[in-house]
Amino acid sequence: MTLLSGLRVVEGSAFVAAPLGGLTLAQLGADVIRFDRIGGGLDYKRWPVVENGVSLYWAGLNKGKRSIALDLSQREGRELATALITAPGENAGLFLSNFPESGWLADAALRKHRPDLVYVNIVGNPDETTAVDYTVNASSGIALATGTVGSSLPLNNALPAWDIATGLNAVIAMLAAERKRRETGAGEVVKISLADVAFTMVANLGFLGQAQVMHENRPPLGNDMYGAFGRDFATSDGGRVMVVAISLNQWQALVAATSVEEHLSAIERAFDADLSLEAERYRCRDAIAALLAPWFAARTLDEVRTELDEHGVCWGPYQTFTQLLEEDWRASTKNPVFGTVDHPGIGEVLTPASPMRLPDAPPVPPACSPLLGTHTDEVLEDVLGLSPTEVGRLHDQGVVSGPEPIAES
Amino acid sequence: MTLLSGLRVVEGSAFVAAPLGGLTLAQLGADVIRFDRIGGGLDYKRWPVVENGVSLYWAGLNKGKRSIALDLSQREGRELATALITAPGENAGLFLSNFPESGWLADAALRKHRPDLVYVNIVGNPDETTAVDYTVNASSGIALATGTVGSSLPLNNALPAWDIATGLNAVIAMLAAERKRRETGAGEVVKISLADVAFTMVANLGFLGQAQVMHENRPPLGNDMYGAFGRDFATSDGGRVMVVAISLNQWQALVAATSVEEHLSAIERAFDADLSLEAERYRCRDAIAALLAPWFAARTLDEVRTELDEHGVCWGPYQTFTQLLEEDWRASTKNPVFGTVDHPGIGEVLTPASPMRLPDAPPVPPACSPLLGTHTDEVLEDVLGLSPTEVGRLHDQGVVSGPEPIAES
Repeated sequence: MTLLSGLRVVEGSAFVAAPLGGLTLAQLGADVIRFDRIGGGLDYKRWPVVENGVSLYWAGLNKGKRSIALDLSQREGRELATALITAPGENAGLFLSNFPESGWLADAALRKHRPDLVYVNIVGNPDETTAVDYTVNASSGIALATGTVGSSLPLNNALPAWDIATGLNAVIAMLAAERKRRETGAGEVVKISLADVAFTMVANLGFLGQAQVMHENRPPLGNDMYGAFGRDFATSDGGRVMVVAISLNQWQALVAATSVEEHLSAIERAFDADLSLEAERYRCRDAIAALLAPWFAARTLDEVRTELDEHGVCWGPYQTFTQLLEEDWRASTKNPVFGTVDHPGIGEVLTPASPMRLPDAPPVPPACSPLLGTHTDEVLEDVLGLSPTEVGRLHDQGVVSGPEPIAES
Repeated sequence: MTLLSGLRVVEGSAFVAAPLGGLTLAQLGADVIRFDRIGGGLDYKRWPVVENGVSLYWAGLNKGKRSIALDLSQREGRELATALITAPGENAGLFLSNFPESGWLADAALRKHRPDLVYVNIVGNPDETTAVDYTVNASSGIALATGTVGSSLPLNNALPAWDIATGLNAVIAMLAAERKRRETGAGEVVKISLADVAFTMVANLGFLGQAQVMHENRPPLGNDMYGAFGRDFATSDGGRVMVVAISLNQWQALVAATSVEEHLSAIERAFDADLSLEAERYRCRDAIAALLAPWFAARTLDEVRTELDEHGVCWGPYQTFTQLLEEDWRASTKNPVFGTVDHPGIGEVLTPASPMRLPDAPPVPPACSPLLGTHTDEVLEDVLGLSPTEVGRLHDQGVVSGPEPIAES
């Protein structure tokens, strides 16, 4: 059995955070049922999309889930969603959503049908006003600490890191609340806001403490690592690598690999520095980098790879997504967390399973995402116990739909 | 009771991912015991540090935990750590670590003492070679999709996003494996690598699919949002804001707030565009931004705030960490997830609790971090049942230590 075999979670969601939460649960073996309005939610056609209109974004974040499409503007559609969310069973009654917790989706309204519901609701701001990863990141301080040295303009990161952290926190809330329900029998509503996740995290990481106690705003450092030695270097063939030396072992490995030991002692004299100390290596980073750069510039990426690996240096090549796919075994089917899966409307794509490896348990294999409403009938029959006749009537009355056809390309 | 009352997790860790995992558990009410070698692990003095040498970084990531310091080079120190990790109790026997899973910390060695141990082990690469957030991010493709438009050099993000995602995944693995243990009685070893977390995530988010299926590498977009309209604007008083319009509602709010409606139809004609469509707004983003920029440039940040909020626009100000602390209620004691806490050696600091709000349950209040070994004696007596005499002997023989004194500043 997988880690979460038997658990059933209903997901009402769009965009990244909540769908990622459901994906994470599905990849651990839970039965995750995502419901959407007929035609799809706000993220069903989100870019990137392939020629026939199928979204790679939606396909990526909804793998291994079951999809049901309901007309939520009809009372009966809302009742079906409510029945799914509050269906009986000790492993059910778990709802993950980033829809506004109001109206028929208000906690009180749902809890009438199942008092021990576990309801995890993702919101933007703590007062439930709108915020998204981009606006929260802008306000977090991180965008003004990202960029080239000396830059005074903020820079966003291409990764929606706050969505990711929020979605994973939602999974933690779900599992923790379900654990408590097993002990006490009581349900729970948990609210998680993107802004709280972001701003508590910059506090946890010491950025806010540094500003409050030391009156310092961490400046943009380009690709340097704060407080230790970490820097990017160009190779002779147009490659670029990130090299990190935090621990003394890592530092000694880098020094040995690049044969700079005797010149380093001159740098120690020049800067009155003790380079066996992490903070001193940070202080002297530009001088150290100037000493190391010619070593990298004289070698191809392959030569750098061989020599750094021989010495156990902590480093990585900068790669485009294409290079990651084509040149790195870690993102290929040589890595058992990846497989090749045929996605409807897209075709064969390298597809990840959960990053959690269980050497002693069977993995949940990589799965494709459903199309919208692929499992409408199956879910209505299996979970709600409706007859095929009743399901047919719901289709006829436009209360349910699916599977959504793929447009001719 | 809190969500995780009664759960006890032992943490063997350094840096961000594993300590953040333990912090997340502690902030939900678990008893998290972090053990370190005497003198502290590699992260005990990590920057930023205040004048007396106390690390704001360590203080931020170890809040609410109990700390025990052991001489792990002595057999008896390792035996004490093993006894803690494998202590009996249905809510214990949970080990979170980013130390190498070998020697006395090998799964097989620990499991001899407690066959149903849940052991979550964070590693760098899937083959357990070294990797850190910086090197993994370099190889993930994200650094080459981050930066100003047209930039061809990679740029790191100031946020260790892969450490964060890995630490939160470790908590999910812990809770999921503990749940399975309750059902089956069987323990589990779970391995999570930073590289797998990163590379599966760029696949989940569609970056890899776009490269593989559409042969496109997402380019750096400055502060623009991919696939929709999102852009930063300067205000008349030197402020800067991030504005996002993904949904049609958000777009209409932005158009209404900035009174550009009639000029937009001219842009639609100029570009043969239908700006009611998200993808078309992305295609025409430079023209739209050129139209909007004067509106922002003619207003102060406060004026922008008032008018955008009146219309329900999705936006946020760019802020430094200091501005976040001083000007934003969301990172202040007006927000119940924050409190002011006196940290030993640091003083009063704005300190977060868990970002998960439970309207119907008592919160775990914000806590300070221990100093190294603050709880050495308490843990040895409470958890391992040692007598004060035995604890005294262990101190005398240098097997245990703590609390570590704070240097005079």
